[in-house]
Amino acid sequence: MSLVVQKYGGSSVADAEGIKRVAKRIVEAKKNGNQVVAVVSAMGDTTDELIDLAEQVSPIPAGRELDMLLTAGERISMALLAMAIKNLGHEAQSFTGSQAGVITDSVHNKARIIDVTPGRIRTSVDEGNIAIVAGFQGVSQDNKDITTLGRGGSDTTAVALAAALDADVCEIYTDVDGVFTADPRVVKKARKIDWISFEDMLELAASGSKVLLHRCVEYARRYNIPIHVRSSFSGLPGTWVSNERPQQSAQGAEQVEHALISGVAHDVSEAKVTVVGVPDKPGEAASIFRAIASAEINIDMIVQNVSAASTGLTDISFTLPKAEGKKATAALEKIKPTVGYDSLRYDDQVAKISLVGAGMKTNPGVTAQFFEALSDAGVNIELISTSEIRISVVTRADDVKEAVQAVHTSFGLDNDSEEAVVYGGTGR
Amino acid sequence: MSLVVQKYGGSSVADAEGIKRVAKRIVEAKKNGNQVVAVVSAMGDTTDELIDLAEQVSPIPAGRELDMLLTAGERISMALLAMAIKNLGHEAQSFTGSQAGVITDSVHNKARIIDVTPGRIRTSVDEGNIAIVAGFQGVSQDNKDITTLGRGGSDTTAVALAAALDADVCEIYTDVDGVFTADPRVVKKARKIDWISFEDMLELAASGSKVLLHRCVEYARRYNIPIHVRSSFSGLPGTWVSNERPQQSAQGAEQVEHALISGVAHDVSEAKVTVVGVPDKPGEAASIFRAIASAEINIDMIVQNVSAASTGLTDISFTLPKAEGKKATAALEKIKPTVGYDSLRYDDQVAKISLVGAGMKTNPGVTAQFFEALSDAGVNIELISTSEIRISVVTRADDVKEAVQAVHTSFGLDNDSEEAVVYGGTGR
Repeated sequence: MSLVVQKYGGSSVADAEGIKRVAKRIVEAKKNGNQVVAVVSAMGDTTDELIDLAEQVSPIPAGRELDMLLTAGERISMALLAMAIKNLGHEAQSFTGSQAGVITDSVHNKARIIDVTPGRIRTSVDEGNIAIVAGFQGVSQDNKDITTLGRGGSDTTAVALAAALDADVCEIYTDVDGVFTADPRVVKKARKIDWISFEDMLELAASGSKVLLHRCVEYARRYNIPIHVRSSFSGLPGTWVSNERPQQSAQGAEQVEHALISGVAHDVSEAKVTVVGVPDKPGEAASIFRAIASAEINIDMIVQNVSAASTGLTDISFTLPKAEGKKATAALEKIKPTVGYDSLRYDDQVAKISLVGAGMKTNPGVTAQFFEALSDAGVNIELISTSEIRISVVTRADDVKEAVQAVHTSFGLDNDSEEAVVYGGTGR
Repeated sequence: MSLVVQKYGGSSVADAEGIKRVAKRIVEAKKNGNQVVAVVSAMGDTTDELIDLAEQVSPIPAGRELDMLLTAGERISMALLAMAIKNLGHEAQSFTGSQAGVITDSVHNKARIIDVTPGRIRTSVDEGNIAIVAGFQGVSQDNKDITTLGRGGSDTTAVALAAALDADVCEIYTDVDGVFTADPRVVKKARKIDWISFEDMLELAASGSKVLLHRCVEYARRYNIPIHVRSSFSGLPGTWVSNERPQQSAQGAEQVEHALISGVAHDVSEAKVTVVGVPDKPGEAASIFRAIASAEINIDMIVQNVSAASTGLTDISFTLPKAEGKKATAALEKIKPTVGYDSLRYDDQVAKISLVGAGMKTNPGVTAQFFEALSDAGVNIELISTSEIRISVVTRADDVKEAVQAVHTSFGLDNDSEEAVVYGGTGR
């Protein structure tokens, strides 16, 4: 018998109707002969409403208590879901993160899972129950306090449980049909991807794709748990994320080899900081990024060009979440006397466009085609950064739609353009 | 240092303002040099809203899941309360029933506490924290499932924790000023009682007084935990419930000895069933009440009069919650052929009026005065039942206000009538 871990997000269980719909879908999986564990998020806006309440009683709610508060959200949705399933004539039991054995560190509001001991879940499903598990929450190893996992926590719960239970698949149900070659709100002809490798999915997630968070994909890759991202509304097959393209989704072996580009991601949530006129000598860059790290700011791209021979000065640019902009510039102002740079530029009207695909490793033409597509669309490039399977550029925020569309079309990703594919692709 | 357990009901923490007000009151107790454990109910109508949700997904919600759902209510209020206290500069930690060591049996929705192991609470208060504990909930000994304690569960949690922690007092904060000599909505001149014995309080609770539930008082009596019932709004001293009148509330030793009558309670939630023409022979009454017990119906008063010599038949009457009326009459119809009674009468337009006071044991005149007061008020008596410290009668529901008022006045309980006291009382 297969064991399936499913995860339903807050929009899938936003109200009683949604909960009943999800209950039916879970029962279907059970009827198909699977053991089923369903991880569920809080209903719709519950988490936001609880945060509102917290801010009404305390401007800076204590982390431990905020976690205690927020975990009430999944408690409600999971109990209702279990009731709805029992009402369909199937046995179900709900479990908190703590009961499900999700053991975390003690960092409230963004705890990390350090172990999963799913004994109660295993017993429950072996007894024939459908197990419903609260996403997003766990219990700290040190002092048994309730913790939450932070953003994307429910997806991570699902993947971690799937790994601990040695599940056959982790199905992530959401309000879209899967992972697309670009954001369908930006590119009308974006296509649903049938299969994508962990590596490409990691790059897409790091580049602004919001369907799956980086952390969850990383966990799935480490334990080799295939993820199936699909819609809780349509019931259609979605996107498989795994090491190897599964048989049932391969439409022809030659397509697999030709798969070059997975998709185009964009991100307008970042700002660009440029430190102008940094003396080009050892230790300067280190001082700058030590200051940033000490302020606990995560940065994304870093670009330094060769220094102008005439001045011996160089510019260092990096991108970071807009919310961290003030903190970062303050930290840099503080070290200005010791580093001796000329000035700081802060720019939050930028976008990052990324092209992701394992195929580009062996196809040097990809980079050139990417830049040509942007140039033809009249989009100016401000920064460039690459990895083995990704090229990212920073452009003006105003240009983001044109840029994403141009790249998407150029690489034959548009839905109606099976012939226009350039690098041997077939419009997969 | 004294240890105080406080309990705040849902109306005291109905919104953010209420939570902040309660937080201040708790901090005050802490500042007065006490260790403080505060038990809290769910905010305002939360529990009802969660039950509504449950009924939307399942007509008969499963007990285990309903408990999981409902316990989200206290989780929210307790976390918010801890945040509000921390915001006032004091350390606070919230604990679920399970974390607080409230161990129960496995009867979902109305579990009974079988043990309290408050190790974490003890540690928390010894470290200088104010401990906030979820009322109404526990964890089952057998299978570690979450349970709820049913009606009045938060009061019981508070008393049980006070017993386990060997607290000096259990303060029950509510939306009234204390226990009154009669329901102030019925008797305008009802007086707040400064002190009442466990025994009298038990009889009042059993007779329809709603301030404290029978179960909670029983627990407090068993472990000899003084209860102080008081308003979370006014902050005035309320009513002490204990074995012995505490020194600080005794206004004169002679008053203690003269305390005769504690109060008048009434109850309009019951119906009366009369089984007419029961053969007056051994086993008939047993058959009737075995049938009722098998239907899991709790009954209150039972009255049987001597049989008429001419017929050899007798009538048996009893009272029970109106909600159980249909079930009871159905159960009795079923045994009619074997018992051979004549007919059944069901009457839900009745009220029960009870006079409670330890003093009546040694004052035979109390009963006569009680009946005279009712007779003078033109109230007809349908059933009579007595205990050592209580007399109860069943009357027409229409007569309840006049009856309670007449008895209250007759026994000198009215607020302005210190001179009118009959049995040596002083208007305590």
